[in-house]
Amino acid sequence: MSALYGGIEAGGTKFICAIGTGPNDIRSEKIIQTTTPDETISHVITFFQKQLEMHDIAALGIGSFGPLDADPYSPTYGSITSTPKKGWVNTDFVGTIHQVLDLPIGFDTDVNVAALGERMWGAAKGLDNFIYLTVGTGIGGGGLVNGQSIRGMMHPEMGHIRIPHDLKKDSFKGICPYHVDCLEGLASGPAIEKRWGSPPEELPKGHKAWKLEADYLALAIVNYIAITSPKCVIIGGGVMNQQQLFPMIRERVKELLNNYIQTTEVIDHIDTYITPPALGERSGILGAIALARKMVDS
Amino acid sequence: MSALYGGIEAGGTKFICAIGTGPNDIRSEKIIQTTTPDETISHVITFFQKQLEMHDIAALGIGSFGPLDADPYSPTYGSITSTPKKGWVNTDFVGTIHQVLDLPIGFDTDVNVAALGERMWGAAKGLDNFIYLTVGTGIGGGGLVNGQSIRGMMHPEMGHIRIPHDLKKDSFKGICPYHVDCLEGLASGPAIEKRWGSPPEELPKGHKAWKLEADYLALAIVNYIAITSPKCVIIGGGVMNQQQLFPMIRERVKELLNNYIQTTEVIDHIDTYITPPALGERSGILGAIALARKMVDS
Repeated sequence: MSALYGGIEAGGTKFICAIGTGPNDIRSEKIIQTTTPDETISHVITFFQKQLEMHDIAALGIGSFGPLDADPYSPTYGSITSTPKKGWVNTDFVGTIHQVLDLPIGFDTDVNVAALGERMWGAAKGLDNFIYLTVGTGIGGGGLVNGQSIRGMMHPEMGHIRIPHDLKKDSFKGICPYHVDCLEGLASGPAIEKRWGSPPEELPKGHKAWKLEADYLALAIVNYIAITSPKCVIIGGGVMNQQQLFPMIRERVKELLNNYIQTTEVIDHIDTYITPPALGERSGILGAIALARKMVDS
Repeated sequence: MSALYGGIEAGGTKFICAIGTGPNDIRSEKIIQTTTPDETISHVITFFQKQLEMHDIAALGIGSFGPLDADPYSPTYGSITSTPKKGWVNTDFVGTIHQVLDLPIGFDTDVNVAALGERMWGAAKGLDNFIYLTVGTGIGGGGLVNGQSIRGMMHPEMGHIRIPHDLKKDSFKGICPYHVDCLEGLASGPAIEKRWGSPPEELPKGHKAWKLEADYLALAIVNYIAITSPKCVIIGGGVMNQQQLFPMIRERVKELLNNYIQTTEVIDHIDTYITPPALGERSGILGAIALARKMVDS
């Protein structure tokens, strides 16, 4: 019997737990509502305990909402730290699981982990440098540089970059509680809803909201390009279900770069350079499985 | 006789060539004016040929102005590519030297290489993730992520990020020929000179130019922090000889982050987090020596 891998996609509204080896081999999966840390994590543990009665599990990968501490040398490694999510501040996520389940556990941000999924089975197959961005309730970004997940002082917080905000063109102030009109404050799902009075999914495809949204996301992407020079930019999340955004973003990125960056990716292959996740909404949970596999392989 | 290392800091106005092993052991050094590629590179070759008559040189490191191709798997590896520097477009820099000098040659951007110098002997000793920014005639940024120089689709072009530009506060349009009011267009030395009518070094320390300059650089730095989460941000270059900028930048970065990033580096140690290069103007040439050492060690 060859071993399986466990994955947890820990989100602010739900946790997805799964075991398997990859996209075509998920043996069991369970959705758990995110309530208190005690309750939620105990349901998670119960799921994996039951699986362990039936299967050999080699390792567990966790992609979590944050901010969190993913530095194995830190005393608070494995915790969700200063999150705005009520009740979850300073939750020792990995420690609590590890006390009960004696498995190697990998832990990183939801977006860094989703990026791993896209690298192993999706749109970034084999790439050592790319960005994975999600645009939904919040905006988060992760990815790899030099073949490894981006991590330094802490993890990236790519949704909180400052971008030009022309108040004459867009008088909406922004809704980030920390930075007001950072990218997330201007372009997240709730920002769109507050600006236009309707949730994104109810705005018509021809609404001027989408041109503005594409402009903001393009500004963010040219900054990611200037700073880490990704070989691919994957954009997922609920807002990106508006597929009409992709051609608008691609065109605007080219306009903004204005031939300063003359690579074949940008000049000849912009359609694959700026792309939806190939794994769709499964990047997160499959990325968690990918992280578990990485724990054993490395 | 133990081997020495050769370094070239290739700039738009001058090339510095040196041999040695580190900051306290530079055996010979020569400054060559940057004229045509043929003339300049032939002077460079002559310098190293003479050194090779006297010394054993194990490898050569080059930090160059760009844009350039530093991808060893690319057919144009080792070239300066689409540079605005007259006469230097598509110059096969590494190839021309390698035809004559049979040495391992390392090649990267001036800023990525200066970062290596600061990592080996300077302000980023041992750090695997930090940014090195230079603010002068242009603005360039490089550094390391996951222990290696940042490289992907191409190298970073950190001076060309878009940042908020409040035309009511600063009606100066910007001077970047590609992007008008990107960071470089607003905050480089020539931008300061054009905005205020005097070169930076002639503006009094109390001039309001410096508050504005600190604001722009702080906006850039919070974006670098949000995207790569560096453990240290080193800022060099001619404009940063205005030492009064450092406290203003540090204060403004803290204001802009607004307690969203709660790390000890930002909260407790901002003075060492945002810092001048410890090697001063020597980061570039010493970084080239560091790159040469890395070619042999790795």
